[in-house]
Amino acid sequence: MTIQLYDLAAADEARRFSPYCWRTRMALKHKQLDFETIPWRFTDKEAIAFTNQIFVPVLVDGKTVVNDSWRIAEYLDQTYPDQPKLFDSAMAKAEAHFIGHWADSMVHGSVSRMIILDIFNQVDPKDREYFRTSREKRFGKSLEAVQAERESAKDDLGKALVPMRRSIKEQAFLGGEKPGYADYSVFGAFQWARIISSYEILKPDDEIKEWRNRMLALFGGYAASYLPPGA
Amino acid sequence: MTIQLYDLAAADEARRFSPYCWRTRMALKHKQLDFETIPWRFTDKEAIAFTNQIFVPVLVDGKTVVNDSWRIAEYLDQTYPDQPKLFDSAMAKAEAHFIGHWADSMVHGSVSRMIILDIFNQVDPKDREYFRTSREKRFGKSLEAVQAERESAKDDLGKALVPMRRSIKEQAFLGGEKPGYADYSVFGAFQWARIISSYEILKPDDEIKEWRNRMLALFGGYAASYLPPGA
Repeated sequence: MTIQLYDLAAADEARRFSPYCWRTRMALKHKQLDFETIPWRFTDKEAIAFTNQIFVPVLVDGKTVVNDSWRIAEYLDQTYPDQPKLFDSAMAKAEAHFIGHWADSMVHGSVSRMIILDIFNQVDPKDREYFRTSREKRFGKSLEAVQAERESAKDDLGKALVPMRRSIKEQAFLGGEKPGYADYSVFGAFQWARIISSYEILKPDDEIKEWRNRMLALFGGYAASYLPPGA
Repeated sequence: MTIQLYDLAAADEARRFSPYCWRTRMALKHKQLDFETIPWRFTDKEAIAFTNQIFVPVLVDGKTVVNDSWRIAEYLDQTYPDQPKLFDSAMAKAEAHFIGHWADSMVHGSVSRMIILDIFNQVDPKDREYFRTSREKRFGKSLEAVQAERESAKDDLGKALVPMRRSIKEQAFLGGEKPGYADYSVFGAFQWARIISSYEILKPDDEIKEWRNRMLALFGGYAASYLPPGA
């Protein structure tokens, strides 16, 4: 039975924009596993009630249900050890977890501040009230006010990416010559922005773009094949 | 012939305070290699002129001279593959490099702002002019003015450590159950502060202290055996 992934969708079902679901999508491609996605909206709590979870990604593999992108990555490497590894050693896994936390805490915030109103404008109508209320509470201001300061958020992202910029001057991917789960952890944020917004979150001369292009080209251009808005 | 490490010293020769030299010291202990250190001051350029370098750490292993803490770590794992590994895979090494860059760019700055005047007060008299001039140029203000704002730097450090705090809630070390070079990269900054200053760079309830204590206890309390100032 094909693996199923509950995957956050916008009003346009083809627009799958969750950074965490993208971590899992890239991980599944890396593992060379077939999967199908089930579009899910923020307010579809009943659809995943059987998982005892209220957020995606949720992975259903036969009788096994796994939630949380990190736990899904662990599950995939454990369950399919003969497929290409997301982590090639215990230390690589531990360090990739740090890099995931770094993306969560140092990258996602700045990216969200650049695209939060664009997300609102794309989410399913039934998700709009939930989305605006929860995010305005988090930011302490209106979505419009947050996104109005996106140039400042771009500066912040540029500074946060300093260690990554140094890394990719020395190696093609955070995982070395080949990409690993650390790369997918960070790429989720870039694909999130790309799928939902036409705004360029990086400055014109940022070398991170070269890495982003390499990520978009992986697996036969898998991530690139998802058209940016307006395309 | 015993490995030699040129190691930055304060006026008090026993006070070895370079964060980068501490990365190398911990790496040498991890590799279970015997070594001796040669105290070196900032202005001792002639003493290491034979290496074509002007900064420490410099490692001399027989006829081989290696500078730069990262290159030394690579050299040690390549040259002594049967000793405990600093990196247990290619991916682990690539990701540890990222974590080292993260420490350099997101940790060292805040730490230095808390201890810069304390360093000045400890450096060898012949290094003082160089140290004050170069650091005041870097900060754009006097060492006294920088350190006067150390509470603000402590706040910044606390925020920068978010991803690390999350990691060590799940695992004892950044490298997993056992420490690796990623841990030594970050620990260098903590030992730098501990050796040169009595100022506590972490807030009272910071869980990072538990990790720091584990690091101080490694190798029979090797790093802990270096007494903090005033002790």
